[in-house]
Amino acid sequence: MSRFLSENLINIKPYEPGEQPRSSEKWIKLNTNESPFSPSKNVKNLINNYDYSKLRLYPDPSCYSLISKLSDEFKVNKSQIIVGNGSDEILAFSFMGLCKNGAAFSDLTYGFYPVFSNLFNIKTKIVELNNSFEIDINDYKGLKETIIIANPNAPTGIELSVKCIKKLLESDKDRLVIIDEAYVDFGAESSIKLVKEYDNLLVIGTFSKSRNLAGARIGYAVASEEIIADLNAIKFSFNPYNLSSLSIDIGVEALCDKEYFKSCIEQIVSNREYLTNKLEDLGFEIVKSKANFIFVRPLGIAGKKYYERLKEKGVLVRYFDKTRTKDYVRITIGTIKDCDILIEMTKEILSEVGR
Amino acid sequence: MSRFLSENLINIKPYEPGEQPRSSEKWIKLNTNESPFSPSKNVKNLINNYDYSKLRLYPDPSCYSLISKLSDEFKVNKSQIIVGNGSDEILAFSFMGLCKNGAAFSDLTYGFYPVFSNLFNIKTKIVELNNSFEIDINDYKGLKETIIIANPNAPTGIELSVKCIKKLLESDKDRLVIIDEAYVDFGAESSIKLVKEYDNLLVIGTFSKSRNLAGARIGYAVASEEIIADLNAIKFSFNPYNLSSLSIDIGVEALCDKEYFKSCIEQIVSNREYLTNKLEDLGFEIVKSKANFIFVRPLGIAGKKYYERLKEKGVLVRYFDKTRTKDYVRITIGTIKDCDILIEMTKEILSEVGR
Repeated sequence: MSRFLSENLINIKPYEPGEQPRSSEKWIKLNTNESPFSPSKNVKNLINNYDYSKLRLYPDPSCYSLISKLSDEFKVNKSQIIVGNGSDEILAFSFMGLCKNGAAFSDLTYGFYPVFSNLFNIKTKIVELNNSFEIDINDYKGLKETIIIANPNAPTGIELSVKCIKKLLESDKDRLVIIDEAYVDFGAESSIKLVKEYDNLLVIGTFSKSRNLAGARIGYAVASEEIIADLNAIKFSFNPYNLSSLSIDIGVEALCDKEYFKSCIEQIVSNREYLTNKLEDLGFEIVKSKANFIFVRPLGIAGKKYYERLKEKGVLVRYFDKTRTKDYVRITIGTIKDCDILIEMTKEILSEVGR
Repeated sequence: MSRFLSENLINIKPYEPGEQPRSSEKWIKLNTNESPFSPSKNVKNLINNYDYSKLRLYPDPSCYSLISKLSDEFKVNKSQIIVGNGSDEILAFSFMGLCKNGAAFSDLTYGFYPVFSNLFNIKTKIVELNNSFEIDINDYKGLKETIIIANPNAPTGIELSVKCIKKLLESDKDRLVIIDEAYVDFGAESSIKLVKEYDNLLVIGTFSKSRNLAGARIGYAVASEEIIADLNAIKFSFNPYNLSSLSIDIGVEALCDKEYFKSCIEQIVSNREYLTNKLEDLGFEIVKSKANFIFVRPLGIAGKKYYERLKEKGVLVRYFDKTRTKDYVRITIGTIKDCDILIEMTKEILSEVGR
């Protein structure tokens, strides 16, 4: 730390992303919920035929082409959409500007929320999930704080129904609810349809998971025109050119390829059911997931040990060293081959520990 | 504005980028200091042969490859460098975290500085340039605020000597000085060499101007290891994956092509001298520039009128509607052809107004 750092930032606790090994070849990488599939061929064609001379110019700061395409996709007005440098940037803007009465979120959810709270000095209420790791919306009903819910939740994969979200929105129309839908496309229901009816709702999404584009850094948010105007005021006060020209164009191309999008999701869902069944056969407890990962309690071996042994064997999964999750690991759904290798390794590990 | 916006953000005044017309074909675009030249052929080769499947994975959040290359380029340790989503993002982090005693900068400088001050609620001291639009470092000497200096300054193009910056650093070692070197490569001297000696210095740069890569959003900063650690703590609390995989790789490729970098700069400098002379021949007053733009007071026509008439003729330059600059326009240095068209148009405009 330097002697120049502002006092209110001295105790910030940066987010620790899952391990990102530099040469990914040697790992089966099931730790950061990336897609095992390449982006759409549209993206390949775009990049490999790209007129690189365009890069001398600034990108369109309004990201008009991408927002138009998202507007078609979600059937909402362009003025109700913003795009960001990943959904993390939009989350950052939201914590920065839309949590005037504080923030409320689960004890087990995306680990970045408390980091944002800390960075922007936001009074935060942590609401415990129930014993089945589910959100009980009654726990949120009296709260004045901006509510942030990952739906499906991470690291559990559990969905909260749109019906419940609607109830939450109804219960206090002067309180903002942010639904982080990073994983929604893998089987959960989106709340975007509620934006027309509720102006106290902000839905955030990303191209990093279901669009197979974590490397391109594209996020988006949908809300009332007023909320989007607020987020744009922050964006234009922070970093107006927040998406590169390439990322804007890549986003457009990915959205055009609806069939591939659908087929990738189908495979992930199918592989998720496959892996779930196989691990259940080994006696593992699997939380019912609607995401591209499963939250798993191994049988006969501690969560941390299982994580470590897998890593030694070249398979990266994610372990969260917290009291409530210490028995679990989170496993990203990969290809069928990835799943089979994981199952094989798991059997080896179990036999090593004498089961 | 929504009813959810934090009170401290109600009065933010977003930055207004220069006009970015969506189809740039029809304009001679000399308004946002972009390079008239394509990026390096290395960048073309990289993109057009890019293994797009990599984009399914998150980028390396440490941006190791790009930082290594910058470390070779600037002869400083890797731990003394951070990269950002454009230099604007690094400036934003710096205002957010490194202005604990406020900020001080010129009345005429990069228009984003007051926007950042406003966003982060930073007490700000505006120090007037002298009558020749120069910085007098004596005006800064007693100040406790973090000093931000664009060098060369925008919109004037005037350089502040490294000798003066050194004096400023010496005069109070517990006060941070930020040198924004967006335009330094066009003939001014960089302060990066002072980083070894002074730990109260932060130098910020960009690939948007002299690397012909405004569309790729790549910025960097060089400082003491401690200051870079602070900026990294903020980055990892805000948006750890702040550069796309493509932008990281593009940055590396651009840095490899030293010859092309040098030749583009030489052409800009030569065109700058050419345009300066031609406009001086018309009686215009030109501020002595070390940047890729010139700040020009036309003769026989008001600055605003000159800007408007150029725009009607398809040439975009930048006009700043402030008392001290109302007689001036800022013109980005384009190709020789751009310069000749501008001169031609200028002659037409002058003859229309009867000169």
